[in-house]
Amino acid sequence: MRAVDIIAKTRDKQKLTDEEIKFWVEGYTRGHIPDYQASAWCMAVLLNGLSDEETTALTLHMARSGDTLDLHPIAPFVVDKHSTGGVGDKTTLAVAPLVAATGLPVGKMSGRGLGFSGGTVDKLESIEGFRVDLSKDQFMALLREHGVVVSGQSADLAPADGKFYALRDVTATVPSLPLIAASIMSKKIASGADAIVLDVKVGAGAFMKTQAQAEALARIMIAIGEGVGRKVAAVLSDMNQPLGNAVGNALEVKEAIETLHGGGPADFREHCLTVAGKMLELGGKAPDLAAAIEHLAGLLDGGGAWRKFEEWITAQGGNPAQLADPALLPTAPIVDPLPAPHSGYLAAINAAEVGQTVVDLGGGRAKKGDAIDYGVGVVLHAKAGDFIEAGKPLLTVYANSRASLEAAKERLLAAISWSDEPVSPPEPVLKIIG
Amino acid sequence: MRAVDIIAKTRDKQKLTDEEIKFWVEGYTRGHIPDYQASAWCMAVLLNGLSDEETTALTLHMARSGDTLDLHPIAPFVVDKHSTGGVGDKTTLAVAPLVAATGLPVGKMSGRGLGFSGGTVDKLESIEGFRVDLSKDQFMALLREHGVVVSGQSADLAPADGKFYALRDVTATVPSLPLIAASIMSKKIASGADAIVLDVKVGAGAFMKTQAQAEALARIMIAIGEGVGRKVAAVLSDMNQPLGNAVGNALEVKEAIETLHGGGPADFREHCLTVAGKMLELGGKAPDLAAAIEHLAGLLDGGGAWRKFEEWITAQGGNPAQLADPALLPTAPIVDPLPAPHSGYLAAINAAEVGQTVVDLGGGRAKKGDAIDYGVGVVLHAKAGDFIEAGKPLLTVYANSRASLEAAKERLLAAISWSDEPVSPPEPVLKIIG
Repeated sequence: MRAVDIIAKTRDKQKLTDEEIKFWVEGYTRGHIPDYQASAWCMAVLLNGLSDEETTALTLHMARSGDTLDLHPIAPFVVDKHSTGGVGDKTTLAVAPLVAATGLPVGKMSGRGLGFSGGTVDKLESIEGFRVDLSKDQFMALLREHGVVVSGQSADLAPADGKFYALRDVTATVPSLPLIAASIMSKKIASGADAIVLDVKVGAGAFMKTQAQAEALARIMIAIGEGVGRKVAAVLSDMNQPLGNAVGNALEVKEAIETLHGGGPADFREHCLTVAGKMLELGGKAPDLAAAIEHLAGLLDGGGAWRKFEEWITAQGGNPAQLADPALLPTAPIVDPLPAPHSGYLAAINAAEVGQTVVDLGGGRAKKGDAIDYGVGVVLHAKAGDFIEAGKPLLTVYANSRASLEAAKERLLAAISWSDEPVSPPEPVLKIIG
Repeated sequence: MRAVDIIAKTRDKQKLTDEEIKFWVEGYTRGHIPDYQASAWCMAVLLNGLSDEETTALTLHMARSGDTLDLHPIAPFVVDKHSTGGVGDKTTLAVAPLVAATGLPVGKMSGRGLGFSGGTVDKLESIEGFRVDLSKDQFMALLREHGVVVSGQSADLAPADGKFYALRDVTATVPSLPLIAASIMSKKIASGADAIVLDVKVGAGAFMKTQAQAEALARIMIAIGEGVGRKVAAVLSDMNQPLGNAVGNALEVKEAIETLHGGGPADFREHCLTVAGKMLELGGKAPDLAAAIEHLAGLLDGGGAWRKFEEWITAQGGNPAQLADPALLPTAPIVDPLPAPHSGYLAAINAAEVGQTVVDLGGGRAKKGDAIDYGVGVVLHAKAGDFIEAGKPLLTVYANSRASLEAAKERLLAAISWSDEPVSPPEPVLKIIG
């Protein structure tokens, strides 16, 4: 078997056998197949696609490329969630303790932000002392003791995915549906959860620009997971505008804290209740989604979710004083509201543009390894569908220099579309599959 | 400017600017752009194509990536030819001295064989002592003194092409029309000829399977060459069956010698006269193709071409005794005729299969750097359109072992299609453009 022949088959839209895909994944992971062959193949996949059978085989061989976690000695049934990446997406911060508060263990590995999408790990690290670089034993111990743990992605799980992803990032081969599905599901399968809720983002601030693309991605990921005996469901959610009001690492922690106290933006609360509700449903803790949501809303409003959050963050080394008083979290030196330039209805707030603005403010990475300024970001005071009067605060920018503040204001104003007529606000949850 | 953005543009079928292509070619040649980005881009080009403007810019930046030869101090007008590669294609061996015998200088760099296509340099090296690794000064001196020189490809000319070609070979990105055009024309432009005749092969034994593909390739190469002031014409020629009767390095030298003595297979003689005739026409040595061919036929039949061949080969170090007595050229120990298994018309002889058979006999390379057995090969005694009686010799195999002989016979029999009805022989020359 030769790597060049495998590339040629995908180039010519011929199907690869399971044996060929195994050869390919093992060969690349072990360094027998060089990057320059792997990247040519990734581009052929991006432009020609893969069949569902090929995508499933790719995922399973990637999942088996390193260690696999067996969480059953710790807990009989563990749930996980995964977001395909968005702007203002602090869902895990609220959902992990919320679900754990019901007694259903949540063991999760999360990623860092890259490009305009933020990363859960970066958000958590804006809390002083919070540790995400956990050993396998620490991960297991925290899960056993507290029923909730979120770590950075372990390099030992699905190492093939780590190699492929780093390569795709620099060869313009990230936005490929089968490669995205294999990347996500290989990690989820290797990290041992029994049930997985996939939060698939749709819109201007997501990889998937249309609901049809998002559904196609969701369906293949569900098929892959179910094929190896995992329970999988997908929530298709809007990412045309940012989720919630806050975008920026510490600002998003604050918004998650408000939400765990029963407050927070309505769209973010609804989103969290839906994702957590599906986790409960898959975990057999509720007869249906409506009952799950009712139970979870009580935990948000009654303090149960908040107490689990405090326990979790403190257990992973986070400073409890910052939780008790979020004003102690990192804050940018310049906090400047932007008034609405005229009256009208907000028609759209381009999420990708808002996300990129926060990166430019210093809150994200232009390239791997860049340092992050946790205190910068944007808080929206109105969302699509809202009416706002001229001169009222439209949003607030948190910046560390006057120059970056002015650039951010200009970019944000251009990211907003207006309407003289009333506009229906977008539904936060578009569809639930599975 | 970032390499990943250039890959993304080609991936998304957006046109690259001249500036972007310059950045890309220079960056790759100098090693600033790594192989894994270059191969992803090549695959995107293969699957999405490039516009004619982009292909022209790519060619010119590749041509300027190293030295360029100026032959004008030596000769006011130098002609060159290039074949896109085929089986039994010993055209340069006959055409270079034939054209030089008219007084029109031929200065040419040729390649080695790879895959089932033979290479002129390998064929010439089957003559004892013949040297192809000439310095620039030696190349110029031979051209000045003898009016004909054929060397191996200099690594100093169009080094970008050398790098791209080596990468394409191992990443399944060879069969791309714009990349083939840029590869050929960048070397031709850098090596200084004023006029170039492109011999574009069409059929089962060629990259271009259809005449439409071959015409598209010819037209873009002509446009590129004319854009930089070179005279360019293309001869589209049949490569469904091998050219001439002999396939194999020394066997092809013998066939070229027969042809230069006024003999040789009819299709090969016609092909050589057409290619050489276009070279004379472009060089202003004949008013039209018919007059050129008449003049050239006289040189084949009258000994002028043969005397120039002897002068040329001897000047580059070749053993004149082997030219005087071709039986002294390398010959395989086993020479075995294959009788026709039944009577009938030959409908087709798959050139790619014949070429691959000769590679398997040891006459070509499975990979770069493999040693070549000059004496092995195949001589056909009948071509498509011929009637042959059962038991008469269909072809002769030259092998160095019984095992490879038997494998070759089996593969060759399978490569031949038969007909009970008369079959028109294919035209050696399909079309002339320019």
